[in-house]
Amino acid sequence: MEKTLSDKIITALAAIVGPAQVSTALEERLCAAYDGSSREAMPAAVVRPGSADEVARIMALLHEARVPVVARGAGSGMTGGAVPVAGGVVLSLARLNRILEIDPVDQVAVVEPGVVTADLQAAVAEQGLFYPPDPASKKFCTMGGNVAECAGGPRAVKYGVTRDYVKGLEVVLADGRLLRTGTRADKGVAGYDLTRLFVGSEGTLGIVTKIMVRLLPRPEARATFLVAMDDAPAAGALVTAILASFLPCTLELLDGTAIGIARTRLGDRLEPRAGALLLIELDGRKTVVQAEADCMARFLEDAAGVVSVRRAADDEERDELWAARRALSPAAFDLRPHKMSEDVVVPRSRIVPLLTAVGRLAAEHEVVMFAFGHAGDGNMHVNIMYDRADENERQRVHAARERLFARVIELDGTITGEHGVGVSKAAFLAADIGAEAVEVMRRLKHCLDPHGLLNPGKIFVEPS
Amino acid sequence: MEKTLSDKIITALAAIVGPAQVSTALEERLCAAYDGSSREAMPAAVVRPGSADEVARIMALLHEARVPVVARGAGSGMTGGAVPVAGGVVLSLARLNRILEIDPVDQVAVVEPGVVTADLQAAVAEQGLFYPPDPASKKFCTMGGNVAECAGGPRAVKYGVTRDYVKGLEVVLADGRLLRTGTRADKGVAGYDLTRLFVGSEGTLGIVTKIMVRLLPRPEARATFLVAMDDAPAAGALVTAILASFLPCTLELLDGTAIGIARTRLGDRLEPRAGALLLIELDGRKTVVQAEADCMARFLEDAAGVVSVRRAADDEERDELWAARRALSPAAFDLRPHKMSEDVVVPRSRIVPLLTAVGRLAAEHEVVMFAFGHAGDGNMHVNIMYDRADENERQRVHAARERLFARVIELDGTITGEHGVGVSKAAFLAADIGAEAVEVMRRLKHCLDPHGLLNPGKIFVEPS
Repeated sequence: MEKTLSDKIITALAAIVGPAQVSTALEERLCAAYDGSSREAMPAAVVRPGSADEVARIMALLHEARVPVVARGAGSGMTGGAVPVAGGVVLSLARLNRILEIDPVDQVAVVEPGVVTADLQAAVAEQGLFYPPDPASKKFCTMGGNVAECAGGPRAVKYGVTRDYVKGLEVVLADGRLLRTGTRADKGVAGYDLTRLFVGSEGTLGIVTKIMVRLLPRPEARATFLVAMDDAPAAGALVTAILASFLPCTLELLDGTAIGIARTRLGDRLEPRAGALLLIELDGRKTVVQAEADCMARFLEDAAGVVSVRRAADDEERDELWAARRALSPAAFDLRPHKMSEDVVVPRSRIVPLLTAVGRLAAEHEVVMFAFGHAGDGNMHVNIMYDRADENERQRVHAARERLFARVIELDGTITGEHGVGVSKAAFLAADIGAEAVEVMRRLKHCLDPHGLLNPGKIFVEPS
Repeated sequence: MEKTLSDKIITALAAIVGPAQVSTALEERLCAAYDGSSREAMPAAVVRPGSADEVARIMALLHEARVPVVARGAGSGMTGGAVPVAGGVVLSLARLNRILEIDPVDQVAVVEPGVVTADLQAAVAEQGLFYPPDPASKKFCTMGGNVAECAGGPRAVKYGVTRDYVKGLEVVLADGRLLRTGTRADKGVAGYDLTRLFVGSEGTLGIVTKIMVRLLPRPEARATFLVAMDDAPAAGALVTAILASFLPCTLELLDGTAIGIARTRLGDRLEPRAGALLLIELDGRKTVVQAEADCMARFLEDAAGVVSVRRAADDEERDELWAARRALSPAAFDLRPHKMSEDVVVPRSRIVPLLTAVGRLAAEHEVVMFAFGHAGDGNMHVNIMYDRADENERQRVHAARERLFARVIELDGTITGEHGVGVSKAAFLAADIGAEAVEVMRRLKHCLDPHGLLNPGKIFVEPS
């Protein structure tokens, strides 16, 4: 595997994409070296193809020359997925940013991988349609990255994640051949489910050049509740009680530490007696949301552990209810300069034990650690704030994180719900899913990428 | 690959499962030779393991001896999936029929593959829960078969198909190793999506020994409408109009020929002016269904091409509205003794061209051909009635079927929405999904089953 590039290869790349779209300049390589994790590694070159055909020709060339390739969208991933840890070429898909089709009858859209998620959402909304996945980075992350990591978001509890919306893909394989998967039809079982094999494969099995997603009719209305709870156990219990008879589109939780952090920004705007917060949203047809919201209001009146309930009457009040959730991340950086953001998931019945573990680990390892996020699907974001320059604190953070993962696995959960494995969690994969599953995945990887050129060093610890 | 079995292997199998659970008797082999398609092939033996461990030991033995293995549930598949076309061993999973767990908090169930789908549905309903997939064969088909074929049903338009409910699997691989996939948590992106690779793989990648499915809260109420339409194009147009703002749990269509056939049983109970029928169901919370159903009633009043609308007031009336759909299959056999049942799918916007093609092909090839089924997801069952003994008619039927598949592919559809490829459709797979996709699937098959022992002759035409 060649980590650096000969002049001959640079010339050949330039012949494919044009000289302006290949760069070995330090500043360009630096811009492709990082992602949303705290890792960096320099590629030998950055190439920006303008079409799927160019991607195919690049891949054939690099395959022949045995050069590693890392696909890159907006670089907003959280686990090092876009970081070229083995050098080679970063393949920027930023120029493949066209929305090719929005069909309101078939309710599908076809996009290139460089399309920003929120841009797609805005474009389909104009036609009365809805693309549900809503990762926090939606204003800058790209659809290609969403597919690579199987992105989620607060709406997943009702609407599912990226894999539930991808109907088909165009993929350039390791050797440059073009593969089409899936169908425009709403059902299909003709052969193996290749589409879902590529979704979430973190750029290790192929380069996605086209994405067909299914759309839904746009919900007419929303109802939002902010519920202050006595404490995290009461909030966890209420989450499971809600899901026994409601299907909210959002069911977010903030633990006590998270509230304390948000309060440094919001002060008295946050209920002073809140030991935990739940943010609940319902959506759908206007009359239906009205009926459901009235049921929800009555349900919350009688629920155990509720301190207070606020219901938004309009968009301004809705924004106010979301204020704590939004204030949290910026406020956390007032405490420490660096953040480790984990996206562990547990079955619903284990949310309370997870929250308890977070509190205990924070105390035992003396770290600033708080939990918030998508309680409805058990996908809690556990953030640890620290100062990377403080070696002792850094070690405590890593120890706490490792014990968190072990506890999540004990609780029948998984170490990643929507950020992917990347580099950050590769060492923990086998403990999570078992050695046999890792071995089967590595066999599949080898089958589609025999020379280990596609995003090497990701998902698996050992070289392929 | 050994199609027959030595005494030594029979003895070894008996040592694993006990002598009573291995048979080479003609009558037992005959009972394992057929499925819901019109094909038959005799296995060399039938083995009935009683545990996953026994399955693992059987697979290790047969792998070593290079004997083909065909997993068998209820044998209700429609495309020859359970027919042992290459001889070898039929592995009956009938004894693995326990519901191992139903958890109302996590909303999951864990079952063995031999559990009958309707039995699982009844068991979860007792706890206020709901397992949506509802293939027509649900009273006798098994969960293992549902997973192998990715079964659907009328409720798929709202709730999706089997793949949308399988959270995790226990699978015995070709060489007898045990693999666990997926997670009990509601989200998970730790490595490749192995679960969905196995769902729909028709027994060609491994033997499923345990299935974890997600459950939903049981809908409180249902509302049912039977809408008589002028003709099939009007019905097709109404389907897309409904889906632009409603999400019914059932949206079934019967074309004119299908109505004519149902009328031979039901006479005047069917609206005489109906050129096509739509059966619509809404489900959910009582108050919500009431509100939605009132919207639907108003919507249907104003819709173009509507002849009459009937709304069920109670369960008895609901059964009456379903009468045409239920009368259809038995009545069709009054016309001809054999049925070829296809499950083609087209994008919603192409339902009308598909129905037009069915009418045209029936006329041109002089065959009895009608379309009904899951119009909401474009998954129409096209049935052709014929007499297998009439060679000329048989040839006309096959010609009409081949042209139907070609037309479906032209319409951006797929040749199978829920029955699978099996033997019946293997010859058409490349035309449907492309040669590259078939080649990639064959590579994956080879990767997991290097000696081609798992259900040989299925999905792919060529030997693996």
